[in-house]
Order: sequence, then structure tokens, then C-alpha cells
Amino acid sequence: MFPSNVTIVEVGPRDGFQMEKTFIPTDLKVAIIDNLVTAGVRRIEATSFVNPKVIPQMADSAEVLARVKRQPSTHYTALIPNAKGAQRAIDAKCDSVRLVICVTETYNQRNVGMSVAQSILACDDIIHMSSAAGMGFEVIIALAFGCPFEGHVPEDTPVGIAHQLAAKGITNIGIADSIGTGNPVQVKCMMRRLQTELPNVHFSMHIHDTRGLGLANLFAALECGIDSFDSSLGGLGGCPIMVGGTGNVPTEDVVNLCHEIGIQTGINIEGVCEASHKMQAFLGRSLPSAILRSGTRQQLFTKITH
Amino acid sequence: MFPSNVTIVEVGPRDGFQMEKTFIPTDLKVAIIDNLVTAGVRRIEATSFVNPKVIPQMADSAEVLARVKRQPSTHYTALIPNAKGAQRAIDAKCDSVRLVICVTETYNQRNVGMSVAQSILACDDIIHMSSAAGMGFEVIIALAFGCPFEGHVPEDTPVGIAHQLAAKGITNIGIADSIGTGNPVQVKCMMRRLQTELPNVHFSMHIHDTRGLGLANLFAALECGIDSFDSSLGGLGGCPIMVGGTGNVPTEDVVNLCHEIGIQTGINIEGVCEASHKMQAFLGRSLPSAILRSGTRQQLFTKITH
Repeated sequence: MFPSNVTIVEVGPRDGFQMEKTFIPTDLKVAIIDNLVTAGVRRIEATSFVNPKVIPQMADSAEVLARVKRQPSTHYTALIPNAKGAQRAIDAKCDSVRLVICVTETYNQRNVGMSVAQSILACDDIIHMSSAAGMGFEVIIALAFGCPFEGHVPEDTPVGIAHQLAAKGITNIGIADSIGTGNPVQVKCMMRRLQTELPNVHFSMHIHDTRGLGLANLFAALECGIDSFDSSLGGLGGCPIMVGGTGNVPTEDVVNLCHEIGIQTGINIEGVCEASHKMQAFLGRSLPSAILRSGTRQQLFTKITH
Repeated sequence: MFPSNVTIVEVGPRDGFQMEKTFIPTDLKVAIIDNLVTAGVRRIEATSFVNPKVIPQMADSAEVLARVKRQPSTHYTALIPNAKGAQRAIDAKCDSVRLVICVTETYNQRNVGMSVAQSILACDDIIHMSSAAGMGFEVIIALAFGCPFEGHVPEDTPVGIAHQLAAKGITNIGIADSIGTGNPVQVKCMMRRLQTELPNVHFSMHIHDTRGLGLANLFAALECGIDSFDSSLGGLGGCPIMVGGTGNVPTEDVVNLCHEIGIQTGINIEGVCEASHKMQAFLGRSLPSAILRSGTRQQLFTKITH
């Protein structure tokens, strides 16, 4: 049932960085991305092409992508809100783009100034653009379990959107628990239903650890055979709207869980920790990753036996 | 498969308090215990009867038990290292005692000055004493997944000890991941094996969150039908020996997970948070509970709709 390999999509440079009020110098952004790639990250959400007036932290997105040491083995992706963002991503030679669609009207309107239906419709142009540019395309269905404005989100809502996307031929869809309100039972129900109803779609997950359930939810998804997860170095990140919101599941902790149960990721935990230490030094605060704080079981046991 | 009800054994007043270097005034210990009981905690490890020279924080154990407002609906238990501790617990009118046996010789020797075999043998006296006093008796098999001195612990070791205890007629056994090295796959394997091989024993779990896997491990145990878990208010606690060791799974977060998936605990989360806030104020630092920091999904959604 478990996948033998898991793809980690490192989203710290986007979902993590965008939450920081202090502008992170482009040099540091580039260094962190390169460090993570050196640590074995093979898929990285390097930035987003959004309105820099709304998210100033992402104002240097094109420069970041131009300056990172592009490795042919690594896939550089970017988050986009619309077709305009897709064009900027094409110009910056992204390997793929990820369009985010929030399932509730209130949040999607605030986030990208469109209704949910308009966002779904916008996929048509982006499919053409990305296809013509030889660029991958994925859609992230955000707030799939709950919304800070509209509350509980019934399972039918994200599943219905997934069906509409699949009907357009979209084969890569991410399910995002953006504010960490999902639980492992919900995760299993939703992911199994999606896999059954849409067997030709590859589903990934994006999980926030707001209520301490991040790794429990991720383990539940692993048990369903889900083999691709977003995570952020050190657990960097938060929610722009919610007080007490927290970051994604920490990359170190996800990689550790996978390795502990015999699933390969190709990622070197120590290498990720080095990048997280660098971020901690810049931010002047501790990041939430448990492995960053306590180390792995292997590190502890190796210390004993040597 | 899930239990319909879960018993939370609040161990903060023992496992949490014993880690604090500053002596927690007896008044505060008593107040916290009473607060937790008011919040619906029906089983509480109120203290331990150990050598006060070794653990000065527990020097007031008899006084704590004498001063708490004993509720008939609540079960007050205490950790003991040996028969001497059992006698002190009887004198203090504990409802039950919990003997801790570490699975590795090095740790058990350091912890209680006995070999593992001697600790198992000590059960005989304690069985007689507790039975004569009408007091319950449970054994905690500690370091069941790993030891900071001896490293990896094979599954056969704790299972073998459980068999020896069951042969003595002991029907309540706790499995403790004392340094948080277990993972959900190991938890499922071990708990299912124990339930199959020893169907007349009631097994509980004691989980530390050292590598961020606390709730994932707990959810794995819930899926096996385990219905009794130790936890500590706010996630208070640590490991006296390990740098980077952390506390038990936080009571708030465990209760939240149970309630979210429809399992009753009888515990009011807000009431536990109040006790945790009181402890944070005394300790001058934040406790790790995610719910204490971010609140529950219900609290968030209620705020929206009202």
C-alpha cells in the first residue's frame, strides 16, 4: 500500500518566504534553494508570480529563477494566480507552474480576485500556454478541508472541483489543507475517493501542521499510496490571515518519517537542516521542525554505537 | 476498529513536573491537578514515590495526594520504582500504582538500581501489596522502541517482558516510547502483536513527541483499538538524559484528535488549556501544544459563524 518512493516538493522558498515581513535578500533566497537542491531536493517551488504590490516578498521571483544554479535533475516550479502569472513563469523558464484555486468563494475572491468558476475557466488558457511552452501544469485545490472565512468545507466541494479539472485533461492535482483543519480520517476518506473516482489523475498533498496533526495526516495519505507531498524547510511558514496559523509540515520531519518506514526520498536530512539553520540565523528565531531540534533516531543511535 | 471512548491518563504532574529544575510549589501542583480534574480528566498520574534525593521535584508526593480535592469519579495514580514506593503509595491512598520497568539493562539499572529480571520479580510483592490494599496495579514497559544507552530495541524485548508480566496475572500494561524513537508502522506491528498474543491484557500507550511523530503514532494505535493513552498538559516534559528530548504528546492535542474523529474523552479542551496557561505563566516559557497555540478547528469555525 505504501509507495516505495516519495517526491518531496519543497515549498519553503514560496509558502515559507512569503509569510516573512522582512524582505529576504535575493542572495539568501538563491543560496537556500541551491542548498536544498544539493541536499537532494528534486522538485522545488522556487517562488510565485503574483502581484508584487500584494506580496512584496515575491517581487524578485524572476531574478531568483535566473540566478539559481539550475540542475537538470531538479524540477523548478512556481505558484501562479492566473494566466498572467503563467506567462511570467514561462519567461522565467520554469519547468512547471502550479495554479492555486481556493474552494470557497470568499477566499478565492480575496486571494486572486476571481470566482471559483473563473479560476477553473482560467485553466483553459494556462493549459494551452504551458503546453505550447513545454511546461508542466498542476492545480492546487486549496482550503480543501476548511476555510478561515466560510468554515467547514464538505468533501464534495474539492472533489467536485477535481472532477471539473480532470474533465479538462489536467492530470496533476494537489489537495491542500491550507489552514490545518483536516484530520487523518478525513484525509483517508477524501484521498481514497479521489483515487477511485479519478484513477487517471496523480494526486499530491499539501499539509499544514496547525493543530499538530501534520504528520498524522501525511501518514494517513501514505497509507492511501499518495507519493508526493509539499513540505517546507524547518516548517517555515504560516497563514497570512489566521492568527496561530503555522507552516507546512517540515521537510526534515517528513523525510525522517518516510525513511523510518522504509520509503525513499533521495533527500539528505542533514543538508536540509543546514539550510534551516541558515534561515534560523537570518530570522533570529527557531523553526518548528522536531528533527531540526532533536535529530533523528539514527543520529542518536549512531552516537551510542560509535 | 476505533474505540468509541478513550481514557486519557494525564501524566503532566509526574512526567512533566519531574523535568523542571525549579521546584514547583505544592500549592501550584495541587491547583493544576484539581484544575485538570475539573476539566474532565478521570485518570491522573498525580506524582511518583521515588527517592527525593534523586528527584527532589517529587519530594512532596504524599502532601500533594493529601491535599488534592479527591473526586470519587477520578482515579489518582502514582509512578513507583519498587515495593518501597508501593507502600508509600498505599499510605497516601492512591487508587493505583504504576511500576516502570525499562527494557534495557543499562537504563533500568540507572533508573531503579535493579536488573530487568529483578524489576519483574519485584512485581510479585507489589501484586500482593496492592491486592491487599484494594489498589490497582499497572506496569509500564519503558523504552519499548529505543534506549538512549543501548539504541534500537527489538520488538521481541518488550513483547517478551509483557508475556512474563501476563504470566503473573498482570492485566494492565503500558507500552512507553519514552524517547520518541518509534514510528507508526512499528506501533501498529507491536500493538497488534501484543493484542493477539495476550488477548486478556489491557494495553495502554505512553508516547513522546520527540521527532514530531507523537500524534501519528497515537493515531496508529487508535486504529489498532488502543483506548488508553498517557499525555501531559501542554506537552510539558522531556527526558532527563537526552538533549533535545521532549515531553509527552500534549493532552490538548490528543483530546482534539480524538474529538475530531468522533471519539469521546469526556475532557474539556478549554479547561486543560487554562491549566497549561497557568503552567506557562509559572515557567515563563511556551509549552509545545499546537492546540494551546492555535486553538481548535471548532473554535475557529464558531468564531466565523457567530
